[in-house]
Amino acid sequence: MSLATHIRTIHDVDRHHKHLKWSKKLDPVLTVSSGDVVTFDTLDSSNGQITIDSDTSALDSFKLELADPAFGPVYVRGAEPGDALKIDIVSLEIGNWGWSAVFPGFGLLADDFAEPNLKIWKFDAASGYAELKPGVRVPLRPFLGIMGIAPAADGEFSTIPPTNVGGNIDCRDLVVGSTLYLPVQVPGALFSCGDGHAAQGQGEVCGTAIETPMKATVRLTACKNYPWVQSPHLFLPPQAPSTLPVPDKGCYATMGLDSDLLEATRKAARFMIDWLVSTKGLTRHEAYILTSVASDLKLAEVVDMPNHAVTMSIPLNLFSS
Amino acid sequence: MSLATHIRTIHDVDRHHKHLKWSKKLDPVLTVSSGDVVTFDTLDSSNGQITIDSDTSALDSFKLELADPAFGPVYVRGAEPGDALKIDIVSLEIGNWGWSAVFPGFGLLADDFAEPNLKIWKFDAASGYAELKPGVRVPLRPFLGIMGIAPAADGEFSTIPPTNVGGNIDCRDLVVGSTLYLPVQVPGALFSCGDGHAAQGQGEVCGTAIETPMKATVRLTACKNYPWVQSPHLFLPPQAPSTLPVPDKGCYATMGLDSDLLEATRKAARFMIDWLVSTKGLTRHEAYILTSVASDLKLAEVVDMPNHAVTMSIPLNLFSS
Repeated sequence: MSLATHIRTIHDVDRHHKHLKWSKKLDPVLTVSSGDVVTFDTLDSSNGQITIDSDTSALDSFKLELADPAFGPVYVRGAEPGDALKIDIVSLEIGNWGWSAVFPGFGLLADDFAEPNLKIWKFDAASGYAELKPGVRVPLRPFLGIMGIAPAADGEFSTIPPTNVGGNIDCRDLVVGSTLYLPVQVPGALFSCGDGHAAQGQGEVCGTAIETPMKATVRLTACKNYPWVQSPHLFLPPQAPSTLPVPDKGCYATMGLDSDLLEATRKAARFMIDWLVSTKGLTRHEAYILTSVASDLKLAEVVDMPNHAVTMSIPLNLFSS
Repeated sequence: MSLATHIRTIHDVDRHHKHLKWSKKLDPVLTVSSGDVVTFDTLDSSNGQITIDSDTSALDSFKLELADPAFGPVYVRGAEPGDALKIDIVSLEIGNWGWSAVFPGFGLLADDFAEPNLKIWKFDAASGYAELKPGVRVPLRPFLGIMGIAPAADGEFSTIPPTNVGGNIDCRDLVVGSTLYLPVQVPGALFSCGDGHAAQGQGEVCGTAIETPMKATVRLTACKNYPWVQSPHLFLPPQAPSTLPVPDKGCYATMGLDSDLLEATRKAARFMIDWLVSTKGLTRHEAYILTSVASDLKLAEVVDMPNHAVTMSIPLNLFSS
């Protein structure tokens, strides 16, 4: 198979094709075939309100209602309710700057930080690092904070909280080479993305990552017969080169979303147990015990009110097949 | 310095020196100098109630009030309230078996699993793996679920919930080569440990790890001038061999403990910010932003009621010094 065949058709979504609410009523800006590749030219999460020249005073006039635009939506032919939409992260290009902010009243420690603060990061993406200050540098690890599809429910829904159909999941693990699966609820899935992050810790605790414009390329594929995908599921590739005695095969992860963090954790575990039983031939007790002795449990996102996101991941090299 | 000088004196605590409550009134079973090495011969967390020959029926007569014994306590000369006790994990030896159980009414998914289940794991520790069933094997990664010191408060306290002075923190990251710091509250610190785990996922979601007897050797050192150690703090060594462009220097981690999982997360973040400000010369805003763009946030333990444990960790190679 030639590369051209493998990549299929390439499409573009530009930065004017944005929306601030999720809705199944949005007109698609593009219709593609399952397996096509789409490049999204996305603004940063401030929607252009913050620039490389901004200082902390820019936060005074910041309009929250303009924040977290999603770019799209893209209609994927053949994606039907009950399918999974597979999103392969092909490439993520960032520029030479980004920003992080502490907004009063927002973030995990909102009660502790009353004063606003804006950090403009300037970097050479090729260097692989952004400097906080001399002697402190953060590895760049780009990913999209927002990847989501339209919910089945009637109405319009803010892009800020993530839900079972994705959206602002802010999962730092979704770097190039990763795959996200989302449960399709409407014909065509209606995929959008945005909220480019040059780097983010788990939880995004101050409420922002290194926010940055991003040119993001993903492959969108409608998958039949993935009934276990009822929330965001993830495939995370091996960390190359492997140094493990058994080859690293990457990880499979499930995401639980809930306004209660412990319940989000329970959901992540339940989704993982369902996946282990469905695909690995384990009994429910075996699956529960396996999650207890071999899984990772991370706080992907704890600031996108009202929903928190917890991921449970299992190394795939536990399994011989 | 010769190895003998480095190791200092070696002492032993045997499996009869156990307690089921934390209390500052316990008589030490051993008194050591700061920097001494102590080997603890510990029973498994069932306190010997489950053996290699047990089956699920053993759970019917399981006495919870005998579970999670701690071995010690050891009085460390020179450790005074306000100091940190540094615990270096020197070696952890396990045998050829362990167990995992689902107890009705216990574990993250207690509402979903009404039936008890016991899994006896038999393994050759030298192989590095324990087999759940043919085709599914779990890497052995031993650590102590319980490492703690006496609280300042009067009274006796169950060994099951972890607190700011440690105890049943069930933190899978504390493998050989790691270091745990605990805030000393009473003269001599009164250190105990137990709850050997041959392997555990984060969160220990079903309520048990691969529970196993363990011969654990640790170095105990009283440290002055670590005022930021107000909860368990951890040093996690590099994952050797490093494949990173910048050498892996390991991680520093802080633990938040609370009956509310989100508040435990806040505490972990606050302790990390305090540490970054105290030791790395960052402003509080810089520290908050750094945690947001570069930290890991994991659920160490979500089943040891009523307290949950969340760790925030920062890679030390972010810092040039």
